[in-house]
Amino acid sequence: MSIHKKLSATIITIGDELLIGQTVDTNSAWIASSLNQIGITIQRRVAVGDEWNAIWKALEDESKTANIILITGGLGPTSDDITKPLLCEFFGGQLVTNQAALDNVVDIFTKKLQRPLLDRNLKQAEVPDNCVVIQNKRGTAPGMWFEKNDVIFVSMPGVPYEMKGMMDDHVIPTLLKRFDVPPIQHRTLLTAGIGESFLAEKLKQFESDLPATIKLAYLPNYGMVRLRLTSLDSSIEPSMMDQWFEKLKSYTEEFLVFDEDITLQAAIAKKLNSTSKTLAIAESCTGGYISHLITQMPGSSQFFLGGVISYSNEMKQDALEVPENILKEYGAVSTQTVECMAAGVRKLAKADFGLATSGIMGPTGGTDTKQVGYVCVGFSSIEITISTTFQFRFDRKRNIELTAVNALDFLRKNIG
Amino acid sequence: MSIHKKLSATIITIGDELLIGQTVDTNSAWIASSLNQIGITIQRRVAVGDEWNAIWKALEDESKTANIILITGGLGPTSDDITKPLLCEFFGGQLVTNQAALDNVVDIFTKKLQRPLLDRNLKQAEVPDNCVVIQNKRGTAPGMWFEKNDVIFVSMPGVPYEMKGMMDDHVIPTLLKRFDVPPIQHRTLLTAGIGESFLAEKLKQFESDLPATIKLAYLPNYGMVRLRLTSLDSSIEPSMMDQWFEKLKSYTEEFLVFDEDITLQAAIAKKLNSTSKTLAIAESCTGGYISHLITQMPGSSQFFLGGVISYSNEMKQDALEVPENILKEYGAVSTQTVECMAAGVRKLAKADFGLATSGIMGPTGGTDTKQVGYVCVGFSSIEITISTTFQFRFDRKRNIELTAVNALDFLRKNIG
Repeated sequence: MSIHKKLSATIITIGDELLIGQTVDTNSAWIASSLNQIGITIQRRVAVGDEWNAIWKALEDESKTANIILITGGLGPTSDDITKPLLCEFFGGQLVTNQAALDNVVDIFTKKLQRPLLDRNLKQAEVPDNCVVIQNKRGTAPGMWFEKNDVIFVSMPGVPYEMKGMMDDHVIPTLLKRFDVPPIQHRTLLTAGIGESFLAEKLKQFESDLPATIKLAYLPNYGMVRLRLTSLDSSIEPSMMDQWFEKLKSYTEEFLVFDEDITLQAAIAKKLNSTSKTLAIAESCTGGYISHLITQMPGSSQFFLGGVISYSNEMKQDALEVPENILKEYGAVSTQTVECMAAGVRKLAKADFGLATSGIMGPTGGTDTKQVGYVCVGFSSIEITISTTFQFRFDRKRNIELTAVNALDFLRKNIG
Repeated sequence: MSIHKKLSATIITIGDELLIGQTVDTNSAWIASSLNQIGITIQRRVAVGDEWNAIWKALEDESKTANIILITGGLGPTSDDITKPLLCEFFGGQLVTNQAALDNVVDIFTKKLQRPLLDRNLKQAEVPDNCVVIQNKRGTAPGMWFEKNDVIFVSMPGVPYEMKGMMDDHVIPTLLKRFDVPPIQHRTLLTAGIGESFLAEKLKQFESDLPATIKLAYLPNYGMVRLRLTSLDSSIEPSMMDQWFEKLKSYTEEFLVFDEDITLQAAIAKKLNSTSKTLAIAESCTGGYISHLITQMPGSSQFFLGGVISYSNEMKQDALEVPENILKEYGAVSTQTVECMAAGVRKLAKADFGLATSGIMGPTGGTDTKQVGYVCVGFSSIEITISTTFQFRFDRKRNIELTAVNALDFLRKNIG
């Protein structure tokens, strides 16, 4: 069967932790992005607690407007997890033990965990008799695929690692076989140095020329603005998207950072790998965050040699060889100090480039001349050692993030 | 006016970026947690795109069951932001310029940004004439407070920093004045070393004794399980919650890590500050992530002296003085190496304690004897230098997170 009507999906996430703010829902964004890539639009996302009526109502309401409903959460072995009995009743089935799911539970407990198997674990292998069981290769709770009145309901565990595995192994391939839709097309570019409203002013003509079947979105973040074109109609050829994207690029040329939907650190990785150059980072105020952004990327060890987190002045002197008189005369947060730090870490790690940060992230630590949010960033190569300063005015977490993004952008500009 | 009926809130987040997976919604968790603290329960969270009918329907539907609706997003100066005209029409108002909001926009552009002011920026000061305007001290888009049929609607910008400021400065204080409800009570403890289902088995009697007005939730994460008691009824006295929490603690005693809802790093910070001890960290496989978790906390410079990210072997030798023959004989990922790293960073930073990580995070880099997910963690004090190993089996991102949590737990155990 291949259905051609417009596909529209809703994500329902279940769990009290989502409603009391104990957990940030990262599953929804991941699912949305995966479905988008195969041409399925998410129309709504709904989160409800571990409460029978709330879950039931969400299933009923959302199935009126969506043809695909992806559900995560509430499948654990404990009594607060009620999704499975609810689904069983909702679809009028009976709970039966699924042999493959049972084998999987037994295998996990006896071989991997080497723990005795409890009744409640065995119960995880019970599934409604009117669903297709999706085996869970990464955990004990199986997924379930139901269909009712032309609506598909897929229930998956809330553990991101298990849910993602099920989506990749089973749900996405099955939806792809079932529905024959062209992927939704996106073209994204990143600008820096211009505000959202000025960009919009520059793009007035572009926006009025743009066909109604292509949508332009502004996504401001950390002083940069991402621009995204999205095809709203499956009749739009990739070449047409490309043409409009080229036009968008020429409108924004002087502020264009890159014409891909990649992160700053990924752009830097590309550049360093293509030129076989290496990097080392000395972080004071960012406390390891920039290095973390870099090392989260697979393959970063190819160009990233390491760094120093010089929180104390002694670390700045002993590990990075910042001269004591520089620290005394100009202070730890100064252009002079970050330049020494950048050069120092470059030499210590024997890297081609050194990057350094020092600043006052707050909430305390500001002075009359250097307020909370004041940041110095240094860059050093064999040819040049330079620095720049920023004044942010936010809370600690955001100041750290802003410093990281702006330091990476300073690095990007200087590695050419 | 003080209303005593049960308060129930819904969060509506607006933006295409939420439905295509480009943005993880962190606002909802933050809002939920803030409202929870003042006794307001979130019953649902709904995300919709920048689409007139979808937003309209969400407002209509959610106002049938909630008395408070908090809306974020869609208030920017560009044409994809349609929330304000929609709200104006939804509540039957006229757009008028708000003088205080206009002064704020002018002030931001002329003083802070030093950029010319565009028409579309001035338009941000326009608001429906039937709302209470919430001034935005951190950005240009004002918030709006509407009431209709006993339901409160609050519209705020999607930028987390601006939204949080508005909530803290205006929304929370106004709701507190308006509604006289006792805060929802939570008691949370963290266990380690026992699976969710075994814990549930241990707590069978506890759960059956627990009154229906107190709910127990299991929140497993990174091999640890958080247990949370929540009061479902405002009649429950704090002392009664305390009694049940003490009972829960005694049931879980042997696995109890701490009896507060704090992070591992916060527990470590408490301990180090109370004993005036200092810490330094050498990170290989975690690449700065542990130091970031530590330095994100305000006041961490009191006990955290710094660290080294020794991605390359040269950094391990030059900065941490790991002997070349140790690296050659046992490899960079070995208990011998992490012990040298932990001792090395402790000496370099002149700290009381040193922590070190080295491992294979994937997706590549595994060998026959040391597979992807194999991790060594070292600890060093003036008295002792020891290590432990782990075998995780996940993707890079999760392996880094798991290593960080388990390394912090190893540190916690060893600092007594």
